[in-house]
Amino acid sequence: MSDLFFERVAFIGIGHIGSSLARLLRREKIAGTIIACARRKETLDAVLRLKLAEEVTDDPAKAVENADLVVIATPLSTYGDIGKAIAPHLKPGAIVTDVGSVKELVIRDFVPLMPEGVHVVPGHPVAGTENSGPESGFPEVFRDRWCILTPVPFGNADALDKITRMWKSGQMQVATMDAAHHDRVLAITSHVPHLIAYTIVGTATDLEDTLKSEVIKFSASGFRDFTRIAASDPVMWRDIFLNNREAVLEVLQRLNEDLTAMQRAIRWGEGDKLQERFAKTRAIRRSIVEAKQA
Amino acid sequence: MSDLFFERVAFIGIGHIGSSLARLLRREKIAGTIIACARRKETLDAVLRLKLAEEVTDDPAKAVENADLVVIATPLSTYGDIGKAIAPHLKPGAIVTDVGSVKELVIRDFVPLMPEGVHVVPGHPVAGTENSGPESGFPEVFRDRWCILTPVPFGNADALDKITRMWKSGQMQVATMDAAHHDRVLAITSHVPHLIAYTIVGTATDLEDTLKSEVIKFSASGFRDFTRIAASDPVMWRDIFLNNREAVLEVLQRLNEDLTAMQRAIRWGEGDKLQERFAKTRAIRRSIVEAKQA
Repeated sequence: MSDLFFERVAFIGIGHIGSSLARLLRREKIAGTIIACARRKETLDAVLRLKLAEEVTDDPAKAVENADLVVIATPLSTYGDIGKAIAPHLKPGAIVTDVGSVKELVIRDFVPLMPEGVHVVPGHPVAGTENSGPESGFPEVFRDRWCILTPVPFGNADALDKITRMWKSGQMQVATMDAAHHDRVLAITSHVPHLIAYTIVGTATDLEDTLKSEVIKFSASGFRDFTRIAASDPVMWRDIFLNNREAVLEVLQRLNEDLTAMQRAIRWGEGDKLQERFAKTRAIRRSIVEAKQA
Repeated sequence: MSDLFFERVAFIGIGHIGSSLARLLRREKIAGTIIACARRKETLDAVLRLKLAEEVTDDPAKAVENADLVVIATPLSTYGDIGKAIAPHLKPGAIVTDVGSVKELVIRDFVPLMPEGVHVVPGHPVAGTENSGPESGFPEVFRDRWCILTPVPFGNADALDKITRMWKSGQMQVATMDAAHHDRVLAITSHVPHLIAYTIVGTATDLEDTLKSEVIKFSASGFRDFTRIAASDPVMWRDIFLNNREAVLEVLQRLNEDLTAMQRAIRWGEGDKLQERFAKTRAIRRSIVEAKQA
């Protein structure tokens, strides 16, 4: 892996995932100089305090100058503006990658903004905790998880290889797939589960105060797991839903039908139906344990 | 706590929670002889192999003979038959308690079956993992969790005190409340979250095979937590939904309205609404972390 080295790496956005990657690049000696770009001064102060970067700026155009690798790690709604801002300043031959949770729209709206001679490798490390901000990152967050790359047609093979090896250095398994397919899979495994968690915790938020305080007190059997998921970054998740709308709505529709069937079975006391359904889901859990993703 | 000792303790049902309590009673020297009753021979064999009880039987009537404490730890649908079977054989002055997740129906259908002179203390330790069976129990499962007791009107104060101290010996915090209120709180914190988890994992189970295998592979961001919850015992959960029908259906109805509102906001691109909703739920998570239930 000795040839996997980027003299100058620019992070546009350096929250939970961005800062985890920055730490990984440091640990693995993959990055020379790191420059971090963020909008908020507190973020940039934290980055310097944590020694995550040598240089900081709030100007994406300045950040990417002379960068060999540019990592976009901001909420999806910022991609368009960032693309326009950085395009004229990218060095020929630079690799641009991202860590966004939706890929089809990124490829459609962001990739065409990139100038010729710049190599784009859209990516999504399927990892992370519910925490946000540069303080919350750690390089082990990627270990044993999957990173999905959705290469553009006729993309640069060398760039794809380097980004693949970069994630592998964090002990990730790397898969490549079509962007639309990625978005459908993630709608089921991640986006809709998050929406459900946000919703059920929201439903509890609307309860009268005495009941709410008891919900918190007795949260230890199910609800707690939902609150952990529902503590994730609101802006990041807003953007995910808005940018993966079709796939999310399709899964929600299926889920809604299934939930209505469950509701009906409870109302009419159809115990056999419930039990049969509950027994089936155990099999999926076993597969996940076997796939070492538990 | 020297007077907290039961010469003879009968467990009717000895799965995850029952066996955890049996282990606790041993560790704390609260039980003399333990007798375990289960329907399946494999369970009884496991109980003997694990030395959880001195005696085993598949006959509840025989199990409770001369018992000073009887713990019902079976699925809720068995309570009626068990009540009828054990009633004529209970020793006067015996304490009967249970660990069921629904309390109002238990009090309505089970308590009246108990003969006079026997003291019933309905209880619910809000603890446990997704695992089942006597092998899966461990006494630390109760630590720092809540146990809710729903005492019957004009119940025996000494019996209530002993059951309270029994759970406290496992470092549980003990609360008492009205059974109907318990069922409403648990519908939100536990029953509906489990139903949702079962449903979404079920929806994934119905996917075409290639997509399903990818859902397993990339489960690490949200979905995984749901599969853990959805791996819980199917019979136990069937009985919970059938026995807490009204409260569960009421919460489901609220949830459904909220989910429809989310769905609509995604369809119409109402980012502000989504973000506002997502930001609110973070506050509940913080309260849970502060309440040390995280």
